[in-house]
Amino acid sequence: MNQDYIKPDNWSIIEEGFDAERVKSSQSLFSIGNGAMGQRANFEEKYTGESFQGSYIAGIYYPDKTKVGWWKNGYPEYFAKVLNAPNWIGIDIEINGENLDLNTCASIKNFRRELNMKEGWYHRSFDATLKNGTEISVKVRRFLSIDLDEVGMINYEITPLNKDAKIIYKPYIDAGVTNEDANWDEKFWEPLKVKKTGNEAFITAQTFKTHFEVTTFMQNSIWQNGENLSISPSAIDSLPDKIKFSYDVIVAQGQKSSIQKIGGYTVSLNHKNTLVAAEKAIQSALTKGYEQLLNDQIEAWAKIWEMSDITIEGDVKAQQGIRFNIFQLNQTYLGKDNRLNIGPKGFTGEKYGGSTYWDTEAYCIPFYMATKDQEVARNLLAYRYNHLEKAIENAEKNLGFKNGAALYPMVTMNGEECHNEWEITHEEIHRNGAIAFAIYNYHRFTGDYSYIPEKGLEVLIAISRFWHQRANYSNDKNQFVILGVTGPNEYENNVNNNFHTNYIAQWCINYTQEQIKKVALEFPLDHKRIVEKVQLSDAEIQQWKKVADNMYFPKSEELGIYLQQDGFLDKDLVPVKDLDPSQRPINQKWSWDRVLRSPYIKQADVLQSFYFFEEHFSKEELKRNFEYYESFTVHESSLSPCVHSIQAAALDKMDMAYAFYLRTSRLDLDDYNKEVKEGCHITSMAGTWMSIVEGFGGMRIRNDTLHFSPKIPKEWKAYSFKINFRNQILKVAVSQDGTSFTVNGDTDLALVVNGKRIQARKLENSIINNL
Amino acid sequence: MNQDYIKPDNWSIIEEGFDAERVKSSQSLFSIGNGAMGQRANFEEKYTGESFQGSYIAGIYYPDKTKVGWWKNGYPEYFAKVLNAPNWIGIDIEINGENLDLNTCASIKNFRRELNMKEGWYHRSFDATLKNGTEISVKVRRFLSIDLDEVGMINYEITPLNKDAKIIYKPYIDAGVTNEDANWDEKFWEPLKVKKTGNEAFITAQTFKTHFEVTTFMQNSIWQNGENLSISPSAIDSLPDKIKFSYDVIVAQGQKSSIQKIGGYTVSLNHKNTLVAAEKAIQSALTKGYEQLLNDQIEAWAKIWEMSDITIEGDVKAQQGIRFNIFQLNQTYLGKDNRLNIGPKGFTGEKYGGSTYWDTEAYCIPFYMATKDQEVARNLLAYRYNHLEKAIENAEKNLGFKNGAALYPMVTMNGEECHNEWEITHEEIHRNGAIAFAIYNYHRFTGDYSYIPEKGLEVLIAISRFWHQRANYSNDKNQFVILGVTGPNEYENNVNNNFHTNYIAQWCINYTQEQIKKVALEFPLDHKRIVEKVQLSDAEIQQWKKVADNMYFPKSEELGIYLQQDGFLDKDLVPVKDLDPSQRPINQKWSWDRVLRSPYIKQADVLQSFYFFEEHFSKEELKRNFEYYESFTVHESSLSPCVHSIQAAALDKMDMAYAFYLRTSRLDLDDYNKEVKEGCHITSMAGTWMSIVEGFGGMRIRNDTLHFSPKIPKEWKAYSFKINFRNQILKVAVSQDGTSFTVNGDTDLALVVNGKRIQARKLENSIINNL
Repeated sequence: MNQDYIKPDNWSIIEEGFDAERVKSSQSLFSIGNGAMGQRANFEEKYTGESFQGSYIAGIYYPDKTKVGWWKNGYPEYFAKVLNAPNWIGIDIEINGENLDLNTCASIKNFRRELNMKEGWYHRSFDATLKNGTEISVKVRRFLSIDLDEVGMINYEITPLNKDAKIIYKPYIDAGVTNEDANWDEKFWEPLKVKKTGNEAFITAQTFKTHFEVTTFMQNSIWQNGENLSISPSAIDSLPDKIKFSYDVIVAQGQKSSIQKIGGYTVSLNHKNTLVAAEKAIQSALTKGYEQLLNDQIEAWAKIWEMSDITIEGDVKAQQGIRFNIFQLNQTYLGKDNRLNIGPKGFTGEKYGGSTYWDTEAYCIPFYMATKDQEVARNLLAYRYNHLEKAIENAEKNLGFKNGAALYPMVTMNGEECHNEWEITHEEIHRNGAIAFAIYNYHRFTGDYSYIPEKGLEVLIAISRFWHQRANYSNDKNQFVILGVTGPNEYENNVNNNFHTNYIAQWCINYTQEQIKKVALEFPLDHKRIVEKVQLSDAEIQQWKKVADNMYFPKSEELGIYLQQDGFLDKDLVPVKDLDPSQRPINQKWSWDRVLRSPYIKQADVLQSFYFFEEHFSKEELKRNFEYYESFTVHESSLSPCVHSIQAAALDKMDMAYAFYLRTSRLDLDDYNKEVKEGCHITSMAGTWMSIVEGFGGMRIRNDTLHFSPKIPKEWKAYSFKINFRNQILKVAVSQDGTSFTVNGDTDLALVVNGKRIQARKLENSIINNL
Repeated sequence: MNQDYIKPDNWSIIEEGFDAERVKSSQSLFSIGNGAMGQRANFEEKYTGESFQGSYIAGIYYPDKTKVGWWKNGYPEYFAKVLNAPNWIGIDIEINGENLDLNTCASIKNFRRELNMKEGWYHRSFDATLKNGTEISVKVRRFLSIDLDEVGMINYEITPLNKDAKIIYKPYIDAGVTNEDANWDEKFWEPLKVKKTGNEAFITAQTFKTHFEVTTFMQNSIWQNGENLSISPSAIDSLPDKIKFSYDVIVAQGQKSSIQKIGGYTVSLNHKNTLVAAEKAIQSALTKGYEQLLNDQIEAWAKIWEMSDITIEGDVKAQQGIRFNIFQLNQTYLGKDNRLNIGPKGFTGEKYGGSTYWDTEAYCIPFYMATKDQEVARNLLAYRYNHLEKAIENAEKNLGFKNGAALYPMVTMNGEECHNEWEITHEEIHRNGAIAFAIYNYHRFTGDYSYIPEKGLEVLIAISRFWHQRANYSNDKNQFVILGVTGPNEYENNVNNNFHTNYIAQWCINYTQEQIKKVALEFPLDHKRIVEKVQLSDAEIQQWKKVADNMYFPKSEELGIYLQQDGFLDKDLVPVKDLDPSQRPINQKWSWDRVLRSPYIKQADVLQSFYFFEEHFSKEELKRNFEYYESFTVHESSLSPCVHSIQAAALDKMDMAYAFYLRTSRLDLDDYNKEVKEGCHITSMAGTWMSIVEGFGGMRIRNDTLHFSPKIPKEWKAYSFKINFRNQILKVAVSQDGTSFTVNGDTDLALVVNGKRIQARKLENSIINNL
């Protein structure tokens, strides 16, 4: 843990007191988003202290053509940068001739931020004394509407405390923004046109190269003591990329003055004419008005929480942690637009670029599957189906594969690979397996098989073709091997026979063969269509089978474990507990070669197979492998602690499970990895959800039935979560005394709890004793 | 072979006929240089066809801060770009109102280029008919003075053939140049000031970031029928980064008109005031005049050839090839300035950046040692001694080593690492071994031990410290292993236990220990000084010894070979001869992951150890390893065929040795790797020299004595070379009948030829029968 200034609270993230050192971290933690856009918690008024400005629009990126080193064939053409979008939140404030700036004013008191997760708004308040002696009280609320998802609202209220004040509000929109992530001080936006009329202003700009067009807009109104003054700007500064209005008001001591600013974006992904769309967006917002929009916001979030909330009693920090995770996931992706996906930083930062990683399939789909309508998870699967052609093209043109083999991109915005490190892009191929696994997982959870004959089988075939071609026969081992890969543990590059990669490759081929048979039997028309489309023969399937049946897996008989890769035992095997703490995190302290040759593991790798395919292994095997690899795992990936938490719980190591849970749920709030100022770890937040539901709750799906083996950390009084299982909402409430299972609707739900069949009933608590 | 337009000639490189497709290749092949500067064979007059403009100044570079992928700790701060320097050769030509441009004129006849290697000049001639009907004959000679190495000369002569002509000569200097190697269209030069006076002009410019200041200058004179017209410019165009003079002359049909242009650079590496230095440089050149400078040039090259020429009779292409190699090496580096080194592209292109690679130690030093004064090779060694502190800093700050361990940079301009791919920079550590080997090799060849107590031992100690720390003990193998390296074969990255790396690491430690003992015994004062300076204890040496004595080497007992690295035998072992030729060169056809998991070898790797340490292995071992690895070697590094040629000759595979020789010597002339337009492969040219002297000639140094076992390809009548061995010049002349050995001076030289002791004598041919 590296910080502890966030106040524990069940429903809000709260910061009290102003500390310039914390500004960038808080800008990440207090970020807001609505699935379509989002922004870091930057101040509206000018701030000359250290800051990381960030507003982001889903689906908007820039192709950076930076060349890497000498040459590597097969690189994608670009690296997709997440772009800082034009700024619409800015409101410069002048009070009695002096600019309000928390970095330079005489004093700040009562500074407080609150991110109200229950209601979906961000509030900031403070009292400031300016150098000119004017004391003011400021209260700002901001939210991005879930319902009108192109619109955000700001209510910026100022009360002069010690004298009357001439206040000039200077709201602006600004397309002249830069990126944190830039090689030099490049600009990424080209302003096209500006429009201003009355209290409204618009800047239409497009991104260089990708030519996404965005109209950024604002509409302002000035209020005094709750009344709209209906005044017009006293001055307008207009540049090709920035429009600023000035509104002058005289406010008596103790009176409340405020500006309400409507702002946001309309983008060419959704509109032919983004300017017209922007004018409509303002109209829609004005029609509702601030109060109504705020009420709608509260209601929209209530609906989200109704389905996805997890309660924890007796441990406020744990409660706050899990809600923060669920809140951020819903801010990032709501499943409304199937062209979008879940970026690793969501709308909280630029790092990593791109939007879609294997995180979606391995970590996020279970969360969305269980807390939203089935359609949302199906959309996430279809996202990959829609990119199948590009994945085949990627494998063929960039990497030389044949016959419809697909390699899905490691990082993508639109189906094209958009990362450019060979050890990742070319070699971290287990991602293909995760995409196949998600299809299996979706069917296992929802029981909806239709996706497989309709779309999934084509994806599975293309992936199996890839594995078949990617493996080669080793005469030395008399088995098939997979050389030159990077596993989930990215602290190893270009290794041979990574256990997880070999295992998931074998599984993909076996699973695909089963589905081909099943579709042939149950959906013969789909089978015919697909076999013809992809030109699949039995002979080819036999070729795949040879690879799967004769796959090599590295292991140590002596230790009774699978080896992460060939040669793992040659390393200097000092466990993490004996590592000098000053050397951690190793990814910040050590050079890359040293990280690579060390035994230290960034995130579950062998254990990822044990997580995906738990039922393939005995508990004894899990225990041996878990204990061995846990001792070398540094958890420097945000995706790591959740898997370890789930497995620790399965192995009855509840203290360890609890520690991992806290680490995953408060990774950002407590800044474990010393980097929260760069943004939050969005995709791993779904892992936090899993570590409660699958870890402590022990939820599994076996034979179309939900299984649970509930456990509870000794630190907690009780916890509860809900699961949307095949259109029945099951509430699971676990306390130190026992567990209750309740379903909505009139149909019972058959469950297996601790190996025993029970029926969950409506309005009836079937309390099961824990042990 | 991909081209064959270069006319075979013993002493010149000749192109006949104009072909726009060949322009970029010829610009590389006809490059000229004088060790301090050099340039591609760009046309003086405007050329609007496809062209790769390039002028280079030794030691001038730009630090490119391009970021690579996500993050890798330990990267150097920059990648050193070779910079295209301001253009001083440009002379626009206007004839009767039309610009001369070979891309647009009505016809071109008798186009001919000649690079006269014997005399060190480049000549181009052609007859052109302009669109306006004027026919002219053009003859241009250009050379870069070896004696006044800041100065180059152009004599541009025009004869109107079918009518009188008004000719306007527009010589210019231009600092507004761009780079081929640029991420975007960046500029790298900032013009500081211009000066023009009479027929002279100067632009002083500095490189961005590195702030190297360069004054580019020109002085022009106009001649008619051999007489200087002493005219002044009729017009002057002056921009901050370009100055162009115009000289108008009327030339009668059949009369010879010419412009003589003196040009070049003075740089802040050598002068406080580069402008004053430039004025002096022009004065020096004017004092001598064109004819005298040309005569001096011919004389300077005669001296170079006197020592370094290799003659081949009966095979013009082979003769032309070896002379091209020797010529280019001498154009690139003459050993005058010990801050400079031998860049992989010399002055012929930008690729690879930086100037100094392990090529210098492994390939170039033997050439310079044998064909120049001993001081030149000693300077090349001292270059690394002078960078020792930076190499220690590199190991410590970037890579986390301790206690004075040094890792020399993979690529450098000034001792700092300036490349940025982790698999190269962090892992291709065998380079450290090559630097130690060069110290051994220098002593072996020159007999000058003084370098070791004076400087070399400190380098050896720092390198041994590196190996000691870089190896780790494998409990699994009960031996020391070296994990995560890239060997000389860069088609493998991050492998474990690369044989060559492990072998040279062991050798370095053993050799260093021997030298410490020897210096202690023979130079006790130096020993004391060094041991105190570097704080070396016997206990530490014992630690090194443990590593060297227990080093692991991968091998296959079954095949009787060393393995290139752990796991090599898991590959799909299809020999190169069975590879579809359309797939080659694999580095242009395959994606990087495919190259990596293939068995194909870019250049000698296991065989590099056999080359360095031939006497450690039996001929049987060499044969088995050579035959095994040769079958997988694609020779896509220019450094590859020479080692294979030498080893094939040692194994009496003379046809193979000859084929490799041709490939190495005519690599660029015949464009084997389809890339000569990017520049020539300078450092590998020293390998060509080795393949004659060490390959066919069988030269070795054993126990302070030169050994030979001369062989001759059946395609040749005879060949000869000279060796400066400890200040005696030995000429070795081999024919199909036998070999003669002649020394200059009055002292005999004892040799061992085919195992038999003989005396080489002055003016006396000791003919030895070949077999």
